Amino acid sequence: MDTFAARGYNNASLAEIADRVGLTQAGVLHYFRSKALLLTSVLELRDQRDIEHLGPDRPQGLDFLRHLVNTALRNAEREGIVRLYAVLSAESVTDDHPAQDYFRDRYDGLRAFVADALREACELPADRADLADNAANAIIAVMDGLQVQWLLSPDSVDMAASTDLVVTSLLVSLAPERFGPHAAG
Amino acid sequence: MDTFAARGYNNASLAEIADRVGLTQAGVLHYFRSKALLLTSVLELRDQRDIEHLGPDRPQGLDFLRHLVNTALRNAEREGIVRLYAVLSAESVTDDHPAQDYFRDRYDGLRAFVADALREACELPADRADLADNAANAIIAVMDGLQVQWLLSPDSVDMAASTDLVVTSLLVSLAPERFGPHAAG
Repeated sequence: MDTFAARGYNNASLAEIADRVGLTQAGVLHYFRSKALLLTSVLELRDQRDIEHLGPDRPQGLDFLRHLVNTALRNAEREGIVRLYAVLSAESVTDDHPAQDYFRDRYDGLRAFVADALREACELPADRADLADNAANAIIAVMDGLQVQWLLSPDSVDMAASTDLVVTSLLVSLAPERFGPHAAG
Repeated sequence: MDTFAARGYNNASLAEIADRVGLTQAGVLHYFRSKALLLTSVLELRDQRDIEHLGPDRPQGLDFLRHLVNTALRNAEREGIVRLYAVLSAESVTDDHPAQDYFRDRYDGLRAFVADALREACELPADRADLADNAANAIIAVMDGLQVQWLLSPDSVDMAASTDLVVTSLLVSLAPERFGPHAAG
């Protein structure tokens, strides 16, 4: 994870990875068969940890949106994971990248989760489904984009505050009668 | 630009670049001295084009925020530039990347522009400066993050609509009396 985060996939060398874990390159390839499969395993490990952190009952609706803000807060204390994800997600759009399908599927899944949470929290009618998708993409995007800025200039970026501001503002915008200043409470 | 966008900096080869422009590697290095200086020149060329597009009178305040939404719309028709920027900005956080200072400075400059525009558009008092910075970082982040998602799944992402939704929602949130549903007009 450290090597992929520090160098990206293309520039990471199996020799360095093998050296850091005290194996030969042949030893690493005995377990993972290729650098591409090692990368996929690293990403799956990261996801597994996040799922474990979330517990058996995934939060729904407004709770899930609050969980995203909480994730941004927690990310500010795990620079390595953030860097791994920021570097590899963007690198995945380069030609023939082995994690391209992984990230495409990941965004599809996240988009569906976040849009569902927004529809539930805002009680959006079915004919405003586009709005929930556009807002979901925006929330995922703001979290991703803040990571790159924060990695470059940690003192100029408050990932949790900016994420919270966007989520809160979108909730008011999508359902002013529930979340606006004149909401019944 | 095409080679850096397709492969990232680390994985781009001077041999391929030289081949595509019909020069030898020595010929390319005669003009640019190193792959790192070639990259910097490519990024400066991109910025130069954007500045030319903007014209001599850079829009201010609300006009500048509208210009950002318009940029997101225009970006959906220039996949190569978007990919160049998305790949290199994230890759710049890897160890010893030659564009690290370039992107740090670029985000600092953008943050100041966008925060100024928000302060002007929302007439924010000085004691809410943090709010303008957090909102500015969020707007830049949403534009960046949407690019990666759009490159992976263009049919699932409407960059302009999501950017517009965030900018509009933040304006209402920061200055409800000016932009909210009960604004005077």
